[in-house]
Amino acid sequence: MEQTPDPLARLRAAALKREAAGLRRTLRPRTPDDDGLVDLASNDYLGLARDARLAEAAAEATRIWGTGSTGSRLVTGSTELHARLEDALCAFTGARSALVFSSGYLANLAAVAALGSGALVVSEAGNHASIVDACRLSRSRVVVTPHKDVTAVEKALADRSEEHAIVVTDAVFSVDGDLAPIEELHAAAVRQGALLIVDEAHAIGVIGEDGRGAVHAAGLAGEPAIVRTVTLSKSLGAQGGAVLGAPEVTETLVDTGRSFIFDTGLAPGSVAAALAAVDILRTQPELPGSVRSRARELASMARDLGLETGEPAGAVVPVVLGPPEAALRAAAICAEHGVRAGCFRPPSVPVGRSCLRLTARANLSSDDLAVIRGALTAVAKMKR
Amino acid sequence: MEQTPDPLARLRAAALKREAAGLRRTLRPRTPDDDGLVDLASNDYLGLARDARLAEAAAEATRIWGTGSTGSRLVTGSTELHARLEDALCAFTGARSALVFSSGYLANLAAVAALGSGALVVSEAGNHASIVDACRLSRSRVVVTPHKDVTAVEKALADRSEEHAIVVTDAVFSVDGDLAPIEELHAAAVRQGALLIVDEAHAIGVIGEDGRGAVHAAGLAGEPAIVRTVTLSKSLGAQGGAVLGAPEVTETLVDTGRSFIFDTGLAPGSVAAALAAVDILRTQPELPGSVRSRARELASMARDLGLETGEPAGAVVPVVLGPPEAALRAAAICAEHGVRAGCFRPPSVPVGRSCLRLTARANLSSDDLAVIRGALTAVAKMKR
Repeated sequence: MEQTPDPLARLRAAALKREAAGLRRTLRPRTPDDDGLVDLASNDYLGLARDARLAEAAAEATRIWGTGSTGSRLVTGSTELHARLEDALCAFTGARSALVFSSGYLANLAAVAALGSGALVVSEAGNHASIVDACRLSRSRVVVTPHKDVTAVEKALADRSEEHAIVVTDAVFSVDGDLAPIEELHAAAVRQGALLIVDEAHAIGVIGEDGRGAVHAAGLAGEPAIVRTVTLSKSLGAQGGAVLGAPEVTETLVDTGRSFIFDTGLAPGSVAAALAAVDILRTQPELPGSVRSRARELASMARDLGLETGEPAGAVVPVVLGPPEAALRAAAICAEHGVRAGCFRPPSVPVGRSCLRLTARANLSSDDLAVIRGALTAVAKMKR
Repeated sequence: MEQTPDPLARLRAAALKREAAGLRRTLRPRTPDDDGLVDLASNDYLGLARDARLAEAAAEATRIWGTGSTGSRLVTGSTELHARLEDALCAFTGARSALVFSSGYLANLAAVAALGSGALVVSEAGNHASIVDACRLSRSRVVVTPHKDVTAVEKALADRSEEHAIVVTDAVFSVDGDLAPIEELHAAAVRQGALLIVDEAHAIGVIGEDGRGAVHAAGLAGEPAIVRTVTLSKSLGAQGGAVLGAPEVTETLVDTGRSFIFDTGLAPGSVAAALAAVDILRTQPELPGSVRSRARELASMARDLGLETGEPAGAVVPVVLGPPEAALRAAAICAEHGVRAGCFRPPSVPVGRSCLRLTARANLSSDDLAVIRGALTAVAKMKR
């Protein structure tokens, strides 16, 4: 009798291969006090996730509106609170229209897949995984251009046979931490009649005046052909994402954005927390400047110790170690010295570029910086 | 000089086409009292989204853990609370391992794309949009089989050239409300050495003993080759989703599931709300039976009035009207008579099958049922 295959056997075999390549991952649940470590791993750039004002706003909204939004945004998942957050995001970023999603991942899927449908999609090599997935879901021809290569973008646009086109880029790249050439990309997109989509996930709350993001900082907030996506789960300390753009853009997503139409709306508590965070950015406009200067201090500390890093545009400071094992070892050394550092290996980064990903926070103290110096010194010693 | 195209003009043109086809959509934000309407539109099947126990659990968790999870599940986005919810979901459903996502949409993307990678993907025609998107992201050959056609599934599996295969189905279909032939699909999958993925979005909390879902009801909870996805945002009144399966399955997703690795973890408040809901299902095991009997009452009421409906397996009761305009008009009539009904048009349903989607709730009162009878009577009158 023929043996039917065990469908789990292939999963076990693939896991063994990842094990041999140093690419197994383990979930390490945090304790309420973060094990006493200085957090350089989270995306809580402004320290707002643990802010009592956000917690109180979330608790109050949950009492009024419930713990869930109860349906898709188009059925019962839109509350007046969602509309207030959309208004606040418009006022803060200078966008004309906004649409809140339950995740930044789903915001990118909807924006790129719906706006890129029937068009050429030009996506840059360093873009976030959610954009890569969104490009696939657009079912359009996708041209991937080299990192920050505006000439390649314009050439792809000019050479296209498609009538329409979109260009999509991260504003601040999620691991390298550098800034996209937004003004130049916008000029090229305008010349070529293309929409430009900018993912401000690591820029909102961090870059530009009061943290209004990289597009605002470039003076392009009012431009009709720019679409922005943001997350509410990083500097804004909550959960979810949003698409910001012309009314034509958000109306297109309401009618045709699959990950908008078919997903449950964001929970009211998260909506309220994000709303409170936007309020705080208006009353404490110094926060984004603080996180940027802390990031520059971290980068200069790493550089002085002979570690490979870049010039951070926002909060993200990579320390490149090379092979995955070295990055794992460096993260363990950091933990031994009281610092929680992100450890990024393929597929999160290219092969050979495994790194620590350090993220600055606006509320890092000088005591914290002394602990961090101790940890990075030990990492530099390992590297030598 | 050549005119560069206006990239928003094509969006305006497409919107006009949707307008002419009756396919424009408008967000209607709810008020805190739901405008005084009887809710037959939400997926809050057990009425738990407004339950004070869930709200208190969410508020408490937010105070302890913060308003956001602060990072990807693999970096800082896993807390002890996430681990407790995963344990509780395993205990409740009889699964060996569980992984919580920020959305059921993202849970489906990860499960189907990661487990379907390098395999034949057999997906049924009535599956939810998130599964359709996930099939595309798998980059595998996809065979779409007719609704509940087990013979077609087995033939696709038997005829395959791929060594590996997965079969994916909704447990309860999201608009038609009927149940998939899970036992037969499992038997076919086992015979053909395939993994079976069952989306229990509309089944968890509704179907089977204590609402443990359709796979549990079929006596298959302990089977190694069954993977389940669930949402936390419907009967459980919170937000998010989860994948349940063998440890080999969740380990595969931790290492390779893009929408797991690259998405911010679920907010602690939502985790706590879902955990409280699972606790309530243990102490009030009568809730799932109540919602099923309310759904049968709604269907029988609609049928007695000469409206086209089905025999509901769970909470979902469709009333088929045909053209989109008829469905819109019927929803407006329901609202005039004090009932909020879901109105589903393409692309949410096939062309010609626009409908009201009524969802029963465990806590519908006999007063509510009288109001509903008035509304459906008016809809039936319109239909004649």
